[in-house]
Amino acid sequence: MERIKPRTLSGFMELLPHRQVQFDRMVETLRRTYALYGFTPLDTPAIEASEVLLAKGGGETEKQIYRFTKGDTDLSLRFDLTVPLAKYVALHHNELSFPFRRFQIGKVYRGERAQRGRFREFYQADIDVIGDGALDIINEAEVPAIIYKTFTALGLRRFKIRVNNRKVLSGLFDLLGLRERSGDIMRTIDKLEKIGPEKVRAILTGDFGVPEEGADRLLALLSTPDPMSDLEDLRGQNQLLDQGVGELSTVVGYLSAFGVPEDHFAVDLTIARGLDYYTGTVYETVMLDHPEIGSICSGGRYDNLAEYYTEKQLPGVGISIGLTRLFFVLEDQGYLNEDLLTAPADALLLPMTEDLSPAIALATTLREAGVRTQIYTEKKKFKSKMNYADKLGIPYVVFLGEDEIAAGLCSVKDMASGEQVKIGPQEAAQRIRAGVSARSAGSPIRDRD
Amino acid sequence: MERIKPRTLSGFMELLPHRQVQFDRMVETLRRTYALYGFTPLDTPAIEASEVLLAKGGGETEKQIYRFTKGDTDLSLRFDLTVPLAKYVALHHNELSFPFRRFQIGKVYRGERAQRGRFREFYQADIDVIGDGALDIINEAEVPAIIYKTFTALGLRRFKIRVNNRKVLSGLFDLLGLRERSGDIMRTIDKLEKIGPEKVRAILTGDFGVPEEGADRLLALLSTPDPMSDLEDLRGQNQLLDQGVGELSTVVGYLSAFGVPEDHFAVDLTIARGLDYYTGTVYETVMLDHPEIGSICSGGRYDNLAEYYTEKQLPGVGISIGLTRLFFVLEDQGYLNEDLLTAPADALLLPMTEDLSPAIALATTLREAGVRTQIYTEKKKFKSKMNYADKLGIPYVVFLGEDEIAAGLCSVKDMASGEQVKIGPQEAAQRIRAGVSARSAGSPIRDRD
Repeated sequence: MERIKPRTLSGFMELLPHRQVQFDRMVETLRRTYALYGFTPLDTPAIEASEVLLAKGGGETEKQIYRFTKGDTDLSLRFDLTVPLAKYVALHHNELSFPFRRFQIGKVYRGERAQRGRFREFYQADIDVIGDGALDIINEAEVPAIIYKTFTALGLRRFKIRVNNRKVLSGLFDLLGLRERSGDIMRTIDKLEKIGPEKVRAILTGDFGVPEEGADRLLALLSTPDPMSDLEDLRGQNQLLDQGVGELSTVVGYLSAFGVPEDHFAVDLTIARGLDYYTGTVYETVMLDHPEIGSICSGGRYDNLAEYYTEKQLPGVGISIGLTRLFFVLEDQGYLNEDLLTAPADALLLPMTEDLSPAIALATTLREAGVRTQIYTEKKKFKSKMNYADKLGIPYVVFLGEDEIAAGLCSVKDMASGEQVKIGPQEAAQRIRAGVSARSAGSPIRDRD
Repeated sequence: MERIKPRTLSGFMELLPHRQVQFDRMVETLRRTYALYGFTPLDTPAIEASEVLLAKGGGETEKQIYRFTKGDTDLSLRFDLTVPLAKYVALHHNELSFPFRRFQIGKVYRGERAQRGRFREFYQADIDVIGDGALDIINEAEVPAIIYKTFTALGLRRFKIRVNNRKVLSGLFDLLGLRERSGDIMRTIDKLEKIGPEKVRAILTGDFGVPEEGADRLLALLSTPDPMSDLEDLRGQNQLLDQGVGELSTVVGYLSAFGVPEDHFAVDLTIARGLDYYTGTVYETVMLDHPEIGSICSGGRYDNLAEYYTEKQLPGVGISIGLTRLFFVLEDQGYLNEDLLTAPADALLLPMTEDLSPAIALATTLREAGVRTQIYTEKKKFKSKMNYADKLGIPYVVFLGEDEIAAGLCSVKDMASGEQVKIGPQEAAQRIRAGVSARSAGSPIRDRD
């Protein structure tokens, strides 16, 4: 028989079982945290009609899209979770209650150039709050709290949430007479951290004809140690700027009530986040020890979620975590908490008798008590059975021989300590569950303090 | 601005929020049940290289596949979870421990003709146990227990697991001299329930030249009220038949130890399940009150999971639930338990003061105590705020005004009873959690007794 060499496509993450358990644990933590803030889970198709998905059209993204026809239909795989959300809200508008708060954790597809740590199929974990016609600023203030709680629940400690407001930036450009080149300027200051102030200044004055004084004032503002105080000083000179500064101080003002510690948060006027979508508060989140990987959670406020589908104004605020890439980095940098159990079972049951009924009955009892139990009956040597438990990291092995059956007991071996006891089934279940519970306490990530 | 009409593709399930919660609850029940039996979660890409995915080639399935190119690569969306599993096990063979027990709940794609209740994107929920070279029969005996526990945990009561063994069928064909047409005969008896014994007899004798006596003996055996006893009578006449009968009685023999009640199980010699894949025990599961929807959980034993990728013999046993279709039927037939909460939040917090800090602090306290809390600050009339909670089914509304803040209390209204109490934040959290817990106890499905 001619065989095909099995392979997984480049840019597609496929995890080994213990890694998958670690990944799933992160997903579960996100689901639980998002739910605590009143977000409802959503799941939309991975395939949409191309005309719907690409309604906005253009841009870098379109080249990366997986697009194809089936029969007469022009189809595309979703490249983010925002466009499907816009479609969903426009389509089901009458059946939803607003503000509509949803989270979605799902796979998206982008045919990027393959490179280490970049994926073509990857999970995004998004939350959005959508208003019908209007949306209160408090929703923008709540987002940093959700980011903080999410990463803290995951176990990350050394991270910082950076916040800016697009109205502040636009207002500043107005004030400095730079409105006409605001798109170019925004793109340039987005690179400030990467290329440094000198180069930014050169581009602004050289390429975009920004007057030297304007460039200097802008760069001074962007790098001020106390942006809120500097912004307050500029109040009353530009309406848009005033509005932005007002929003930004509201967001900052409610932080401590929301439980975000000061050292996990900073106003950063250099954060622009793209061009035409965001209209208010914008967010980025960086790992303090790995700034090179960029923002691990980004988003912001927008005024029109679904303008390509409906005339209804649907403002919102949302954030997104690129979960697959984050997981790759965490694994790569040794952040995953390897103390937590990743075994498929809590107990491996080894029957020592011909008739398996007593072992099966014991497994049934253990499972009913919540112990994840595997009966092992393959014809192997004792040593290789123990090796099996060992390799999978199964924490307990349970033996059931004639003696134990006669006495209504079973022998439970703790694989970590080597200790072995002969006890009743209920006591065994209790003991195993306590041990498993102790070895499951802890967050998916282990950061240094 | 020209707008695109938002739509979701035909054959793609997209649920409203409360239905999504019900769907997710079923998924969670499946995950928990599968885990109890020692299966580890797996997630493989939705896209594979076409040559890998279609290694087996041919057949009805190939026409339905979503296949396309991206750059130079010929890609296909997975149409089931078995082929990706075969690839996974062949590819990662050296890094896995056998028996390898995995579950996978994921979307698969088939471009079927669109019709009510049929989906082109749908979830499958699969478990498989894969051996390396050999796999003990006890794994085949355990599968009905997993099916039973799974549907019982979901809340289904009136269902039956039907079991057969392909060796029994093949042995019977040998014995009756029908070996040459065994494929045709198998396909025909698969239709027995649908078209009745008379028509099956006509096809067997007319189309396939089966002698009348052979057809009669076969049909008599297939419809016997006590198949195990009739099969025992045939022992010693054909080796394959003997082996099949032996396996079937082992499976049946261990059922009660595995906790499967007799009335939820039947040996049914008419179950064939396709042609070339299964080699031993085969399973189907039917809803007693809806036989018309066919099997809701099927599978069986196979000898060579990955023969298209590796020379290693990898026998296994697995089952699959077509979850999207099952959910559609359950919703359609009114089986979903509508008593369980589907709200995005446990509590809707209505601040009655200008300064929101006390409300935010209260929300933070409630969330830390595990209460899913939404702060509602949109500028709406009181009545429409209450309507919002009502429409979403949020069970508690919490009011926080000057009086409450001054006294360190909050007002908690039970939306079901209308009762309202003024209590401290911790007591509020406790009360809400108790209420929510009471309204979350119950299975996702409500079957009649």
